[in-house]
Amino acid sequence: MDRVPILKLGDILIISIQIDLDDQSVLALQEDLADAVVTTGARGVIIDITAVEIVDSFIGRMLSTIAAMSRMLDAQTVVVGMRPAVAITLVELGLSLGGVQTALNLEKGIARLDHVRGATP
Amino acid sequence: MDRVPILKLGDILIISIQIDLDDQSVLALQEDLADAVVTTGARGVIIDITAVEIVDSFIGRMLSTIAAMSRMLDAQTVVVGMRPAVAITLVELGLSLGGVQTALNLEKGIARLDHVRGATP
Repeated sequence: MDRVPILKLGDILIISIQIDLDDQSVLALQEDLADAVVTTGARGVIIDITAVEIVDSFIGRMLSTIAAMSRMLDAQTVVVGMRPAVAITLVELGLSLGGVQTALNLEKGIARLDHVRGATP
Repeated sequence: MDRVPILKLGDILIISIQIDLDDQSVLALQEDLADAVVTTGARGVIIDITAVEIVDSFIGRMLSTIAAMSRMLDAQTVVVGMRPAVAITLVELGLSLGGVQTALNLEKGIARLDHVRGATP
């Protein structure tokens, strides 16, 4: 169970990060996700980090990379479910999650994607 | 990261099983889920097992228990994303997943829940 499953819902892909990611699994996730965006023609990617208790620069960089990669493939990325403590840590570490949009939860993330697409048809 | 996050989408709760579950985490998941069904008033629960490579009687029983528990709370359970090898193993083990509905993927699971609710309003 070392690959993160990618769920598809309409033209949105949903990933829920639950395992401690190492270099290998991050690379595997990025490849799987890029493949999934291309094969499904997804317009949005939602990454749920509800289960993530500690965000370090490694995870922060992964989120930024996924967002940049998805943007190349014409998909928006929204990170949802961030814990308050994680937000505090990110700011204290000076990690800004450049290029990554956030929303409080899955529903608001989907609403944000719909809004973005509505604004730039 | 030993608790399985529960995502909410409308009146459906989505769980993606990615970690190896032991007795403790299964109990925690069942409690969290029962709480979530009650607090959100969810009518459906979707359990994604895409990442699950091996299903034994322990996991099978967990799925049946969650389905029975959700039914008590007036929510339908659909298991989605079962791998072909897992289906074969389940049949060979004689595990029938009593009371558990299945669907191929998340989208079909949601469609099935809509159908069930449409049939019995």
